[in-house]
Amino acid sequence: MFQLISQDPKSGARAGVLNTGHGPVETPVFMPVGTQGTVKTLTSEELHQIGAGMILGNTYHLVLRPGEGTIKKAGGLHQFIGWTGPILTDSGGYQVFSLKVLRKIDPDGVTFASHIDGSRRRFTPESVIQAQRDLGSDVAVVLDECLPYPSDAERVRKSVDLTLQWANRSLKAFREKGDGGEHLQLLFSVVQGGAHPELRRECARGLVSLDFDGYTIGGLSVGEPKGVMKTMVEIVNENLPPEKPRYLMGVGTPEDILEAIALGVDMFDCVLPTRLGRNGTVFTPWGKLNLKNARFKEDFRPIDEKCPCYACRQYSRAYLKHLHQAGEILGYRLTTLHNLTYYIHLMKEAREAIIKGHFSYWKKGVIEAPTENKMEE
Amino acid sequence: MFQLISQDPKSGARAGVLNTGHGPVETPVFMPVGTQGTVKTLTSEELHQIGAGMILGNTYHLVLRPGEGTIKKAGGLHQFIGWTGPILTDSGGYQVFSLKVLRKIDPDGVTFASHIDGSRRRFTPESVIQAQRDLGSDVAVVLDECLPYPSDAERVRKSVDLTLQWANRSLKAFREKGDGGEHLQLLFSVVQGGAHPELRRECARGLVSLDFDGYTIGGLSVGEPKGVMKTMVEIVNENLPPEKPRYLMGVGTPEDILEAIALGVDMFDCVLPTRLGRNGTVFTPWGKLNLKNARFKEDFRPIDEKCPCYACRQYSRAYLKHLHQAGEILGYRLTTLHNLTYYIHLMKEAREAIIKGHFSYWKKGVIEAPTENKMEE
Repeated sequence: MFQLISQDPKSGARAGVLNTGHGPVETPVFMPVGTQGTVKTLTSEELHQIGAGMILGNTYHLVLRPGEGTIKKAGGLHQFIGWTGPILTDSGGYQVFSLKVLRKIDPDGVTFASHIDGSRRRFTPESVIQAQRDLGSDVAVVLDECLPYPSDAERVRKSVDLTLQWANRSLKAFREKGDGGEHLQLLFSVVQGGAHPELRRECARGLVSLDFDGYTIGGLSVGEPKGVMKTMVEIVNENLPPEKPRYLMGVGTPEDILEAIALGVDMFDCVLPTRLGRNGTVFTPWGKLNLKNARFKEDFRPIDEKCPCYACRQYSRAYLKHLHQAGEILGYRLTTLHNLTYYIHLMKEAREAIIKGHFSYWKKGVIEAPTENKMEE
Repeated sequence: MFQLISQDPKSGARAGVLNTGHGPVETPVFMPVGTQGTVKTLTSEELHQIGAGMILGNTYHLVLRPGEGTIKKAGGLHQFIGWTGPILTDSGGYQVFSLKVLRKIDPDGVTFASHIDGSRRRFTPESVIQAQRDLGSDVAVVLDECLPYPSDAERVRKSVDLTLQWANRSLKAFREKGDGGEHLQLLFSVVQGGAHPELRRECARGLVSLDFDGYTIGGLSVGEPKGVMKTMVEIVNENLPPEKPRYLMGVGTPEDILEAIALGVDMFDCVLPTRLGRNGTVFTPWGKLNLKNARFKEDFRPIDEKCPCYACRQYSRAYLKHLHQAGEILGYRLTTLHNLTYYIHLMKEAREAIIKGHFSYWKKGVIEAPTENKMEE
């Protein structure tokens, strides 16, 4: 299911392959976020062209709209959204626990109001497994409780207990329902524990004893200092089996991702490249550029002349600035395409560096590269 | 410059070729509208793929943002927006005269406030010619005064006089500036005259005596009854030389376009397919479908299974409905792509029917086709 290909001698970085019902995924991997069944602004064809290995769908959003029943009738999420590669579905726990109003948790599950129409909804560990079966994703994730940062130890302990109980129930429901029907479905659980090392360790060990196909590190990148995130990832990874994939949810900047790879994380997702792209900010080897800046008005160079993406092959910074300034959708498309190309390319380079044994050296070069302003001085 | 290939024996319909500095354009032609230097939501590559022959840019919008100077420095509008096919630039007269506030016309030109930043701007016939030289479009259009419907004869008479004077000045400025520099630029004038047959005739004859490369019919599709539009197009076309191209601005529905082709019009533009596309309404041989309608929720057929566009090859009505319901940009892209494919394909079919001599028969079949609801009954 997961094969480790190579490990970096000077860090925890790993290169591997995750085998799914829709083909293999080379790790480390960055998964573009397709919350509502679309990676915002892009077609499936474009995602294939830029080398996306696996994409994310969100169970919360898809259950609310269009509904897992509709997607099941369409032949599953892959068929519905026209994507033939692997898909991971997030459980939606994060979204439910982000709702500000009308959310009530009990030992059995969580009741909440839809953000779309206010209708009353209920998620249980079992219903979330069933929904992901209906969606037919390649990797399903168990329902977990996600706490805000900071939360005190007593509150987090209760939450970890609940997360472990729910993980146990999820696994039972998952096993009762066979292997996912038409294709293999894998099940990942979520390590919680806030910023409390002991609780993180306990949660990881508890989940590992249940034996999932992979482990997700949740509840980070929610406002805690970088040092806390790093410590938590370290502690969790020390307690996860090396032969299983590790997925750090919602992280993050290119730098954060490279640091987490060094700590042994294999899988990532984040809305940053797509969201910043829609705002006109693009990633380059020399740092981020805000294309709305006046200095790009007559800059007729591509964003990055070495970038193979369509935006860089076809259009100038000046034109992209114009599109963003004018609020044109083509601008949102092109900068999204570029940013995802940047992230995916970075992951491919990281993997190559791990396999060649010089990941730490390569990472230092990426993180310490001078900014464009610096270069132009 | 313009060659008539074929004329329909039973109507005024014509098939021709307009030769431009960026290649030939087969007529009748529908020009997708790229107001701000982008056909909303689409790339140049997609426009080529769906067979767009010529696209429109708007001088008013491009002069205000990013400015004709920037576009000139980029190497012209084609280079700036990455489109290698022909471009027609509208003069911006329609936009200026649509401004509700702060617009003052005098015999020399028109002063107005930018809708973007309120800055004071001035257009004269000469400045608009110069701007279109800088943009480097293949077809430029003279500055005209566009009146609301209805306007009384006295008001329209003054306006026709001004339009003729301005056309004369535009032509002088155009001829003084040579043939457009790097490539051939053509100049079209605009026939005005409101809903007054005599004034339409007078305007057409006056412009023809000046001898332009083509003639645009303006000031229609501004709220007048269909019969009035038809009568005005007829009168104007009777007074235009058959060997020059005729362009009916801002029209319209597929039916309106086919009727105008029958009256001898060669060129069209309209925001309808792109604007309706962004609202989730799509054109089919069986009429328009509003994909947001509940009946498409589990309709897993393509919009039109015979349509060659990417949206129809790859995605279902149910998915497109979902995307539009969720406000996703991919939805706007795909339905825009489909609608333009529909319009462009319709023009190609019209041309073929004209050449084969059965245009009127074919047109009747298109206009009288049963709607989808009717077919499903």
